Amino acid sequence: MSTRQIRKEVDEALLGFVDRQRPLLLGVSDELEPMLAALDTLLAGGKRLRPAFCYWGWRGAGGDARPGIVTAAASLELLQASALIHDDVMDSSDTRRGQPSVHRRFEALHREARWPGAAAPFGEGAAILLGDLCLAWSGEMYEASDLAEERLARGRPVYDLMRTEVMCGQYLDMLEGTRATGTVETALRVVQYKSAKYTIERPLHLGAALAGASPELTEALSAYGLPLGAAFQLRDDVLGVFGDPAETGKPAGDDLREGKRTVLVALTLERANEAQAETVRRRLGDPDLDPAGVAELRTIIEETGGLAACEAMIDRHAAEADAALATAPITAEARDALTALTVAATARRG
Amino acid sequence: MSTRQIRKEVDEALLGFVDRQRPLLLGVSDELEPMLAALDTLLAGGKRLRPAFCYWGWRGAGGDARPGIVTAAASLELLQASALIHDDVMDSSDTRRGQPSVHRRFEALHREARWPGAAAPFGEGAAILLGDLCLAWSGEMYEASDLAEERLARGRPVYDLMRTEVMCGQYLDMLEGTRATGTVETALRVVQYKSAKYTIERPLHLGAALAGASPELTEALSAYGLPLGAAFQLRDDVLGVFGDPAETGKPAGDDLREGKRTVLVALTLERANEAQAETVRRRLGDPDLDPAGVAELRTIIEETGGLAACEAMIDRHAAEADAALATAPITAEARDALTALTVAATARRG
Repeated sequence: MSTRQIRKEVDEALLGFVDRQRPLLLGVSDELEPMLAALDTLLAGGKRLRPAFCYWGWRGAGGDARPGIVTAAASLELLQASALIHDDVMDSSDTRRGQPSVHRRFEALHREARWPGAAAPFGEGAAILLGDLCLAWSGEMYEASDLAEERLARGRPVYDLMRTEVMCGQYLDMLEGTRATGTVETALRVVQYKSAKYTIERPLHLGAALAGASPELTEALSAYGLPLGAAFQLRDDVLGVFGDPAETGKPAGDDLREGKRTVLVALTLERANEAQAETVRRRLGDPDLDPAGVAELRTIIEETGGLAACEAMIDRHAAEADAALATAPITAEARDALTALTVAATARRG
Repeated sequence: MSTRQIRKEVDEALLGFVDRQRPLLLGVSDELEPMLAALDTLLAGGKRLRPAFCYWGWRGAGGDARPGIVTAAASLELLQASALIHDDVMDSSDTRRGQPSVHRRFEALHREARWPGAAAPFGEGAAILLGDLCLAWSGEMYEASDLAEERLARGRPVYDLMRTEVMCGQYLDMLEGTRATGTVETALRVVQYKSAKYTIERPLHLGAALAGASPELTEALSAYGLPLGAAFQLRDDVLGVFGDPAETGKPAGDDLREGKRTVLVALTLERANEAQAETVRRRLGDPDLDPAGVAELRTIIEETGGLAACEAMIDRHAAEADAALATAPITAEARDALTALTVAATARRG
């Protein structure tokens, strides 16, 4: 199957699952319709990277093409939807995938209906609940994937670990934001758990475990997935500052306004002179940062060499991933597909 | 097993599960220790009602005493912990089970550490993540309960339904708060999903499904569990207004300050004259409601007959539950235990 076709099948599995939940929710009350509408909008976007890595982890370990693995892989998109919805509440983000974030959407619903009380807490509450629903549904979809129980039993510990790790990573990410001076080292630890393991290594492991992979293959997938996952997140850091809103679905310089303590920022601060560092500390996380402020920070990130250092780090990690992939004991088809995904994850523009 | 002994075994299973997660979290980073400490504190309290109903649903359907069912039942406490943590964020509640709520706890951690940035969003973010972790762990604990796969497969659809229903119920509860005038009917619909099904009917069904109960037994458990669940929530409504803080673990009149649109409030408004209704609408949900304001609202709830109507409704539902229990096709031991739980759920003081 081509990567495009997998994406199509993942989409079908995902939307099919949500469609089967629809009558249950509307049977409880037709007032739950906005929850479904918000989820439909969110799921219409997304690169489906985690399902793709899960699928190729499976195929790489010798699993055959069958609907069950697509369903199990697609369930990772519901886990990701949950993480995004809750992340946007925690970061007070206005947009996601080019649309209003879920909490802003419900805030607008409250405001437009002229309901009494405050609109913002209503929006946040609805988003917390929709995120919870997506998290519960991700497990439900995995269990309902129609793979043999012995396979699902092998995958469960990986799924469990992935969920725990990403939540730990998110907490460490928040802690990172509380540090007066984050270091490249602590920022990389967040990248490890919040992104490298969660986005790439564990999805690969999940697919491989479902297919009954050997410990050697599992290790080889880590040797490929962890550096690629780090490169993926570092690319995200760069796009969060320099990305084109039309491609990222987020306003220009959004990470700067949110004050994200990324590796890119840490690399910049390591290289900044006193005046530059002072400007970064003062303006980073200013919710009212205007285009001139974004431009000023971008200039510092470029002039210090922070950007170049980050790009070099991406290249280094991507090369490490390539080298690991070249010798991984996987099928040729999987190697080709993962090579293409490496490019998609690190050279992307949105 | 006595109810006290089940509680002890549920506690052991629950704390044992969390203890096995501890090294994983601390292996990621020792900075995750506050997450574990917050969870330990929360789990030290609680009546373990849902595990008890699940256990007696199992025994009532002929299941024998074995550790697996205790573990599966105890996993419901993690689901409940998740719901409480997120509910407290959504309601901005300061306390839970006589302790600071999780988000307030992390807010205090941020403040005491004098970290830069705002303490309140940090507290809320940490609570969202800890609630997510508990939700993920509830499913993980259920799957790891060591019951035979054919049993777990029968229980999964019940677990799935319970999670979806409680999240729907929570959303409807929020919507209820946006209505200028809630009715007894709409408030009872929230009770149905947020409490009656979630706290009693579905836990009973889960235990029964794990034991392989017949459809007749499952129906009989609904005939008992739904009215009992309604009575349980109505008792909660009364305690939220008239309860002793030493027994409820919440400040006096907390539900009034939070502006909860309960059945008790709806029954009061149905019976209130214009002046009384105006006072209720004006003061309900006032975060600065002082003891005099609480007393004023309590007087209205009593004088209108709202309280008496709510107590009568509790009695009626409890009697309905008793009658259903008397004829349910369950073991004598389970009938005795559930009779005791009926009293614990409806005549409790905290």
